[in-house]
Amino acid sequence: MSEVVQKAKLAKQAAPKLGLLSTEQKNNALLRMADALVAEAESIIAANAEDLQRGRESGISTSLLDRLALNRQRIEAMADGLRQVVALPDPIGDTLEAFDRPNGLQIRKVRVPLGVIGIIYEARPNVTVDAVGLCLKTGNAVVLRGGSSALHSNKRIVEVLHDSLKSTDVPADALQLIMDPNRASVDEMLKLNGLLDVLIPRGGASLIQNVVKNATVPVIETGAGICHTYIDASAQPDMALKIAINAKVQRPSVCNSMETLLVHRDFAERHLASIAEQFVQQMVELRGDAEAQRLVPTVKAATESDWDTEYNDYILNVRVVEGLDEALAHIRRHGTMHSECIVTENEANAARFLQEVDAAAVYHNASTRFTDGFEFGFGAEIGISTQKLHARGPMGLPALTSSKYCIVGEGQIRG
Amino acid sequence: MSEVVQKAKLAKQAAPKLGLLSTEQKNNALLRMADALVAEAESIIAANAEDLQRGRESGISTSLLDRLALNRQRIEAMADGLRQVVALPDPIGDTLEAFDRPNGLQIRKVRVPLGVIGIIYEARPNVTVDAVGLCLKTGNAVVLRGGSSALHSNKRIVEVLHDSLKSTDVPADALQLIMDPNRASVDEMLKLNGLLDVLIPRGGASLIQNVVKNATVPVIETGAGICHTYIDASAQPDMALKIAINAKVQRPSVCNSMETLLVHRDFAERHLASIAEQFVQQMVELRGDAEAQRLVPTVKAATESDWDTEYNDYILNVRVVEGLDEALAHIRRHGTMHSECIVTENEANAARFLQEVDAAAVYHNASTRFTDGFEFGFGAEIGISTQKLHARGPMGLPALTSSKYCIVGEGQIRG
Repeated sequence: MSEVVQKAKLAKQAAPKLGLLSTEQKNNALLRMADALVAEAESIIAANAEDLQRGRESGISTSLLDRLALNRQRIEAMADGLRQVVALPDPIGDTLEAFDRPNGLQIRKVRVPLGVIGIIYEARPNVTVDAVGLCLKTGNAVVLRGGSSALHSNKRIVEVLHDSLKSTDVPADALQLIMDPNRASVDEMLKLNGLLDVLIPRGGASLIQNVVKNATVPVIETGAGICHTYIDASAQPDMALKIAINAKVQRPSVCNSMETLLVHRDFAERHLASIAEQFVQQMVELRGDAEAQRLVPTVKAATESDWDTEYNDYILNVRVVEGLDEALAHIRRHGTMHSECIVTENEANAARFLQEVDAAAVYHNASTRFTDGFEFGFGAEIGISTQKLHARGPMGLPALTSSKYCIVGEGQIRG
Repeated sequence: MSEVVQKAKLAKQAAPKLGLLSTEQKNNALLRMADALVAEAESIIAANAEDLQRGRESGISTSLLDRLALNRQRIEAMADGLRQVVALPDPIGDTLEAFDRPNGLQIRKVRVPLGVIGIIYEARPNVTVDAVGLCLKTGNAVVLRGGSSALHSNKRIVEVLHDSLKSTDVPADALQLIMDPNRASVDEMLKLNGLLDVLIPRGGASLIQNVVKNATVPVIETGAGICHTYIDASAQPDMALKIAINAKVQRPSVCNSMETLLVHRDFAERHLASIAEQFVQQMVELRGDAEAQRLVPTVKAATESDWDTEYNDYILNVRVVEGLDEALAHIRRHGTMHSECIVTENEANAARFLQEVDAAAVYHNASTRFTDGFEFGFGAEIGISTQKLHARGPMGLPALTSSKYCIVGEGQIRG
């Protein structure tokens, strides 16, 4: 039996016990884990140093080394993350619906854990702790498969967490880390129907696409965001500028930042030059269609593939459109159904945009950067679903749950 | 471009328009379709006769021929099914949540269509009409891939439906039927990420397992049901008998019927012989463990694989257990998370059973046969989900929808 199958089986065996624990039992375990991480910070930092050393030797990029690096402050942030999850309401056991049937059957739909969640992720070791916290709080066992570059760090973190669970009611088997750094262990997880109830990929576009395109286990797809802001003819110029700048530069590296600015011709004639100037001052490179280039000579020509690129960087596409219909058509063709915005004072156009755009989050007069679990008030960041099944948009703890029907009768049979 | 890709693209192009139609526009189309089916009954019956002829020549079973056969009555039932869908509330556009954030953002979560739904099914041509009705009512385009044995019937039905849509606002392209009878066209649908938003298999266990195990498009799994009834020590004998008989023989061929009866030793000593007699009178063959055989000599020995078999027939497994824990362990090992029942007067045991059994529907003192969209009051039968993601248990129209967040601001940006 492979490591993946063996550990997934252990997780599956542990899941029913975990699913029955009270909120208090689960919170107690989360607090023990948080304390243990801080208490064992030195040994975690030492293990992390091995990963960093190997990373430097194999020549991985500075930004990747930064994401990989742990220090006392980052470990305390991980522990704080667990304590924040303790403070969130426990969705398990909630009654979602309750109704009686004419034959007297009492039907109740209640929230239950999903069972076993597989998480496939990359370099940042904090995802290990994040994922464990969110899964355990929702009564789910978890099988982690982190990036090979963080293997020593993840191994030590999971040892610390396992040890801390010994004095709690959470079965240690509910938390499994796959040690095999080969790609084959990921491929195996993707097909583990019957042992894993769901897979959540966290990382870059290629990791996510590999999981989505090859997994037969149900997947919650997160991540890719080619987000647009459309400035309509009637937009307030100040508001439009403020929203566009925020959507692009407040944090360009994340999925809810803007990649393409669509501007109504009338607005562009009057304001595109000054908006472009502001972007250039913010060190943003502009690429545009012929009309944008005509109005702003410093704009470079966008290639056809630029419209389909998630830069996550200080680069912005600009296109001048004839009106709302052309903007909607562009978004339908190039968007990734993540976050889309219209800036307008025209209520009819705003209503059409909100109704017709098919995306997880559609904005009128606000920055796409708000698509986020914390900003929505959900208090935890599992990810942002860009698929239509099960969960869409920012996912709070309920996204890690399922439901069942409990039916109470007095001997009813079907006629 | 293959037939599958071509037709899926047409459906995807039609989906946005369909998704924006009003309830009245969709209902009007459903009523036109219902009328057209009745008006064109003769030509549908003629096409069906070709399928029946080919089926007889290729030696398919009598029961399959019966499921395939159409007559005026069955076509009228299909039309009535569409009219019943007209009467159901339209979930699209419903506000699921609405909340304001401290920064003034107004967030609303609204129901939207899934987009394009692929349905893969077997012999019964009525599924064609069923699926079209449920998908169109929820604003979804649909790509149908029926069984090759029903190809002529399905082709004629879809022609009739297409014609009837000409005088409506529903784009005819929203309804596509794959004509290629080869297995390759199914395989192609399973991997059509980006064009199909979800796949729903409807049919026998092997069809469903093929879709679940090979699809990379998200799947809603329906169907397989190895359902148990556990008669506890304190069960009322009359109630236990009535529920067990109903769960097995009221309609043995369906997924929510019972395959295995678990009986507490104390109850078995007193009542298993008389219960067994009732089952034998109902022509049910009994297979059991050693203890059941000791108490009822006519019970045959069950093989290990019997406990994992969905008979859908007049066959029942019987096992005598020491108590609730053994019953729960048996269900965990052999159940398919569909429908499970405890018959007991012991409230503590009932509560444990309802909480600990991991299944779509868990019953106390009622027949598992009630797991059904109509019996739950949902008014339509899309199927019964046996998976944990998106939908679980009987699925009403909302199971064919997704959601999106609409956010209205006044120029808010993220700090």
